[in-house]
Amino acid sequence: MTGAPSDTQNTLREGIIELTFGEPDPALLALGLVRRAAVAVLDDAGPAALAYGSLAGPRTLREEIARRIAAREGRACTAAEVLVSAGNSQALGQVLTVLTAPGDVVLVESPTYNLALGIMRDHPVTVVGIPLDEEGLRLGALRAVLAESRTAGKRARLLYTIPTFHNPSGVCLSAERRRDLLAIAAEHDLVVVEDDVYRELVYEGQAPSSLWTLGGDAPVVRLGSFSKTLAPGLRVGWINASAGLLERLAAAGVLESGGCVSQFAASIVGRLLAAGDYDHHVAKLRRTYASRRDALSAALRQHLPAGCGFAVPAGGFFIWLTLPPGLLATELLPTAEAHGVAFAPGARFCSDGDDRSLRLAFSLYDEAALSESARRLGAAVTAALAGRA
Amino acid sequence: MTGAPSDTQNTLREGIIELTFGEPDPALLALGLVRRAAVAVLDDAGPAALAYGSLAGPRTLREEIARRIAAREGRACTAAEVLVSAGNSQALGQVLTVLTAPGDVVLVESPTYNLALGIMRDHPVTVVGIPLDEEGLRLGALRAVLAESRTAGKRARLLYTIPTFHNPSGVCLSAERRRDLLAIAAEHDLVVVEDDVYRELVYEGQAPSSLWTLGGDAPVVRLGSFSKTLAPGLRVGWINASAGLLERLAAAGVLESGGCVSQFAASIVGRLLAAGDYDHHVAKLRRTYASRRDALSAALRQHLPAGCGFAVPAGGFFIWLTLPPGLLATELLPTAEAHGVAFAPGARFCSDGDDRSLRLAFSLYDEAALSESARRLGAAVTAALAGRA
Repeated sequence: MTGAPSDTQNTLREGIIELTFGEPDPALLALGLVRRAAVAVLDDAGPAALAYGSLAGPRTLREEIARRIAAREGRACTAAEVLVSAGNSQALGQVLTVLTAPGDVVLVESPTYNLALGIMRDHPVTVVGIPLDEEGLRLGALRAVLAESRTAGKRARLLYTIPTFHNPSGVCLSAERRRDLLAIAAEHDLVVVEDDVYRELVYEGQAPSSLWTLGGDAPVVRLGSFSKTLAPGLRVGWINASAGLLERLAAAGVLESGGCVSQFAASIVGRLLAAGDYDHHVAKLRRTYASRRDALSAALRQHLPAGCGFAVPAGGFFIWLTLPPGLLATELLPTAEAHGVAFAPGARFCSDGDDRSLRLAFSLYDEAALSESARRLGAAVTAALAGRA
Repeated sequence: MTGAPSDTQNTLREGIIELTFGEPDPALLALGLVRRAAVAVLDDAGPAALAYGSLAGPRTLREEIARRIAAREGRACTAAEVLVSAGNSQALGQVLTVLTAPGDVVLVESPTYNLALGIMRDHPVTVVGIPLDEEGLRLGALRAVLAESRTAGKRARLLYTIPTFHNPSGVCLSAERRRDLLAIAAEHDLVVVEDDVYRELVYEGQAPSSLWTLGGDAPVVRLGSFSKTLAPGLRVGWINASAGLLERLAAAGVLESGGCVSQFAASIVGRLLAAGDYDHHVAKLRRTYASRRDALSAALRQHLPAGCGFAVPAGGFFIWLTLPPGLLATELLPTAEAHGVAFAPGARFCSDGDDRSLRLAFSLYDEAALSESARRLGAAVTAALAGRA
C-alpha cells in the first residue's frame, strides 16, 4: 500500500503490520476513474455541477444506483427511492437525528462496528447490545430485549445491523433470520437500519439479499456506500428506505438548507457509474481482496497455536479470531506489537466488553505481508500462552 | 444566469424574475479554478486525496484558511483552530448534535435565516426568537429572554446569529453590541454560533470583525463557508471555535468514523487557495454583486411607491424591504408573480410570523433584470395598494 502519513485518518507505524484499520488499500482506489469523471462533469455539466443540488442528490447518480439495484439485487427500484448521502457515517447520523427521540432505545449487535457507537453517543439515546452467533443476530435475544424495553416503558426505536459481511465478525445473517427479523420489525414498529457497506465485496457466489430488498414495506433503512469500492474520501453513499421513512429522511432540514450533502462528489460518482467502468473496477477489487483473504486465512491456519478459532468470511474486510481460553485481546496487543503486528481487540466492538476475540483487517496489505502478519501473530499468541503457563 | 432546471435545488419559472433564492449566480461559480485544482490534487496527491482523511480536514486547507484569517482578520490562527465542514448547514447540524441536550433553548434572531430553523426542528430543542433593529440583535431583549429561561428552569444553550450582512435583513451587528454580546455569552455560558457565510462579500470598506475574532476565549463557534464565494455544490466550509468547543466538535462520532465530511472537495479547495487565485476571484465577485446591489437599490428607489422602506446593505445578497402599513408580503406575492417578479415573504423568517417585510436577493440576476424586477415590484405594490383603497 501507499499512504500519506500525516494527513490521513489512520497512521501506520514503521515495522508493524497494521491489521487494525478497516479501510481500502489506497493503491486500489479508483483514482483514474474519478479523475476522468471529475473532468467530464465539470466540462459537460458546467456550473450546474457546482450549484446547490437537488435535495435527494444528482439525478444521474440516483438513476444509476436504481438501475444497478434492479439489475443486481432483483428489486424494482427508481431514482425516487434513492437519497444520496455523504457516506454511511453521515447517513447514520442523519437517521438518528431524524428518526429518534430523546430516551429511545437503539439496539445494536454485539459485537458491532465500534465507530457507529461513537455516532450514537452524540445522540440522546440508550444503546443496548444483542449477541450474535454464526448465523448473525440472535433473534431470541432480540425478542427478549424488545419485551424488556416495553415493560420498562422505553421505546426500542432502531436496530442498527450489519447483516452482510458483518464488521467485525464477518458473518452473514441467515436467510431464515432475515425473514424473521423483518416480521419482528414490522410487529414492533422497529426501524431496521441496515449498514450494507460491504455488499459489493463478495468473494463466494452472491451476497445475501439485503433486508431492504426483501422487506417490501417493512420499516428498513438501507445504507449503501462507495467508500469501500471507489474511494472513502469521496464521501458518497446512499439511502434506500420504505416510502414513509425515506420521505422523513428527505425532509431533513440539513438537506433543505444546503441541498445534497455531497453534491459535487456525488455528481462525479454518477458520471463514473454512467460511463460503465464500475463493474470492471469492482470485479478487480473482488479478485484482489479474495486473494488477500485467502492468504491470511491460510497463514493463520499454519501459524496459530491450537485453541484459536476463526471462520473464513465470504466477503468484506475482516477475519474475527477467537483466542484460546484465558487470553484477552487487549492484553495480547502489546505482545503482538512487539512481534510487529497489530489488530483491533474485541472489547472495542462488544457492548459487554467481551475481549476474547480480535479483528484482523486484510484489506490494506498484499499477500506476502499478510502471511508474515500471521506468522508474527502466531508467535505472539504462543509467547503469551507460554507467559501464562 | 445559466442553470440546469431539473436537477438543482431551486427551479426558476419562465417569465418571473426570482428574487427568492439566496444563492450565487451559477455563471459566477469558480468552475475553472475548481477544475484546475481538482486535476492537480488527483495528479499530485494521488490516492491520498481519496483515502479517509484527517478528522479535522485536509491540512493544506486548514493551513490556508488559518493564514487567510491571520492576514485579513487580524487574529493569529493556526491550522489546529480550523475544523473543516461540509458547509454551514452540515456544520450547524453538527453543532446542535454535539452541543445541545434535549429541552435546551436555542435562541435565534427574528427575522433569521429560515432554513436554519428547519435544521433546528430536527433536534429536540426549543427555539425562541429575539428581535433585531438597524444595529442588529437587540441585547435588551436577549437579556430578558435569558432571564425568563432561567426563571423557567430552562437552559438557553445556543444563540444562532448572523451578525455580518444578516440574512434576511442585511444589517450588521454594531461594534458596541458585538462586545456586549460576548460579555453576555460569557456570563450566561451561552454558546454563540456565528453564521459568517457572507463575510467575503463586502461592498463598502471592511466587514466588521467577527465575534470569534473579537471573542478571545468567549464561547463562540464561527461557521465559515466557500458556498457563496467558490461554489455551493462543493459543500465545503469550516468551523472556528474557542478551544474547548472546538475539541468537543472535533470529537463528533461522525468524524471519527468517516473522517472529514467533505474530504475530496476540501482537498480541492485547499489546493485552489494555495494556488493564490482565490483573492482575485473574490474581488471579481465583490465588484459584480456590488453593482447588482446598486442597480436594484436605485431601481427600487425609482419605482416603489411611498411608504416602502429599505436600507442598502453593505454586503451579502439581500435587500430587506418593508411594505407600506397594512400590506402583508404573503398577500402581495401572488400579485407580484402576476407582474413577473417573486420574493421571499417576511413571515418565513420571523418567529412571530411578522409579514410586513420581504427579502429580495440580488445575487442571481444581472443589472438589467434587477432594474426590471424593481419596476415590476413597484407596479405590484401600487396595484395592491389600489386594490385596498
